[in-house]
Amino acid sequence: MDKIYDLIIIGSGAAGLSASVYACRAELDALVFEKSFSSGGQIINTYEVDNYLGLPGISGYELAMKFREHAEKTGVKFENGEIASVSEKDGIKCLEDSNGNRYYTRSVIIASGAEHRQLGVEGEERLKGMGVSYCATCDGAFFRNKTVAVVGGGDVALEDAVFLSGMCSRVYLIHRRNELRGAKVLQNKVMSLDNVNILWNSTVEEIKGENSVSAATVNTEGNVYDLEISGIFIAVGIKPYSDIFRGFVDMDENGYIIADESGKTSREGVYAAGDVRTKALRQIITAAADGANCVYSAEKYLKGIAL
Amino acid sequence: MDKIYDLIIIGSGAAGLSASVYACRAELDALVFEKSFSSGGQIINTYEVDNYLGLPGISGYELAMKFREHAEKTGVKFENGEIASVSEKDGIKCLEDSNGNRYYTRSVIIASGAEHRQLGVEGEERLKGMGVSYCATCDGAFFRNKTVAVVGGGDVALEDAVFLSGMCSRVYLIHRRNELRGAKVLQNKVMSLDNVNILWNSTVEEIKGENSVSAATVNTEGNVYDLEISGIFIAVGIKPYSDIFRGFVDMDENGYIIADESGKTSREGVYAAGDVRTKALRQIITAAADGANCVYSAEKYLKGIAL
Repeated sequence: MDKIYDLIIIGSGAAGLSASVYACRAELDALVFEKSFSSGGQIINTYEVDNYLGLPGISGYELAMKFREHAEKTGVKFENGEIASVSEKDGIKCLEDSNGNRYYTRSVIIASGAEHRQLGVEGEERLKGMGVSYCATCDGAFFRNKTVAVVGGGDVALEDAVFLSGMCSRVYLIHRRNELRGAKVLQNKVMSLDNVNILWNSTVEEIKGENSVSAATVNTEGNVYDLEISGIFIAVGIKPYSDIFRGFVDMDENGYIIADESGKTSREGVYAAGDVRTKALRQIITAAADGANCVYSAEKYLKGIAL
Repeated sequence: MDKIYDLIIIGSGAAGLSASVYACRAELDALVFEKSFSSGGQIINTYEVDNYLGLPGISGYELAMKFREHAEKTGVKFENGEIASVSEKDGIKCLEDSNGNRYYTRSVIIASGAEHRQLGVEGEERLKGMGVSYCATCDGAFFRNKTVAVVGGGDVALEDAVFLSGMCSRVYLIHRRNELRGAKVLQNKVMSLDNVNILWNSTVEEIKGENSVSAATVNTEGNVYDLEISGIFIAVGIKPYSDIFRGFVDMDENGYIIADESGKTSREGVYAAGDVRTKALRQIITAAADGANCVYSAEKYLKGIAL
């Protein structure tokens, strides 16, 4: 007979790690699946986090390490691998990883997170890692004293522009609208920086370069021109990692798994936490809260005391 | 003309302080009201907190100090005092403190918290955090393989008994009546557990112990005896600090302010965060997430872009 876990947590970002701590303290027989060797999810690619209460001004990497250490200290069990498919039979969920190994569990918390959206323009895929980046924190240092562009108008785009302005000679912020979406404090900071230029009402039509990015073709209100840059940081939103759960649990039109604060999905015993679920505010603190709430829901389900 | 704030936050526990950090970073003209000189709310009286992700095994006092320092570092403005009454005229909220000072604001986040009802018996106050606990989810893990008691007969007491039965060797459920109040599904579960004993028609008269709980003096229908235990979980009710908001915002029958994850109450521009609102799981991490969500809601309201 195969082992049947109480709970398998898919993902080791803030949501998955917080869930793992709560599950471990509740003495559930739980396992955390993480697809990369480093925990923390998107956090690890964040330059500085300053709004996770109690840990001001911390680097994303350091925060991710603290989260991971907390889970390890609590005794959380981790499994390295990527879940490829999910199914259910007689209330037992079966998760199959990409190597064909099967794991059985009574409940699942999906905390698989989300990834950065691509622009989908010519040159983007080809020049990825050769000037096209989705992470200023990771790659900014390669563009010291060079001219770069940031695409987007939300918090992440503004944070990227501020970060890059400290090491690059010039930063163009390319935004398709005539106003920014990001937090006012970030907007003000961006506006105050001499070496950041905002290109309003502008879109990128192509990314050019032989072996590395040399220019972006920009369309500003019908005026098309090549902007000479060495790097381009794309910060235009996120896509939930939910494809393998399609048909297993209900999703909205953007692929977010439909779940409220309790984490309950359309399937009994399956919960969604963090960026992968429908919610208003995707933050580290709200992801961590989700992890706790999902374990609370799962526990009631496992003990047959769901009200 | 009196000054009108963008936002006044009532309370400086995890919910209020997290809200204050988010409000400050959003450049709102905000003020935090705190009734005691020490921030942190209930946290400050917690012996050890081990489930706030990223800060394992920290004393409640130390955690509260970290939260307060974070808020101060961010530039949050605090006002010491207690709000005595609230009213609204033409969309402007007026808060009056116990000294008769009036404060005007466009939006309010109520993060006034709640208190656990006490038994009011000898030893309870003295042994708080040394075996006397008001939160099984928070502290249960400290009593692995030990004998504990739960006092109460409602949903929370029954949930606590079920939860603790999974990690403690024996759980005594001490209830003053001859029938339980909690949901039938919970009653059935409690009855089915081999290591849970219910002491009917019983009250706790004293909690004993030198540096940690060693026994509870129980009175069962006039028969008084010492029950040897290592921990006692008191689950005789939570009382939200919401009295002054009665009639201002809708509440449930227990006095919790009715609000979902967004924090929105029955009154526009007024939000509820943390233990004072209707929610399933009252934890530090969920309170801190509430603070962030409420500011997000308030910002949209203030900018006239609330959906």
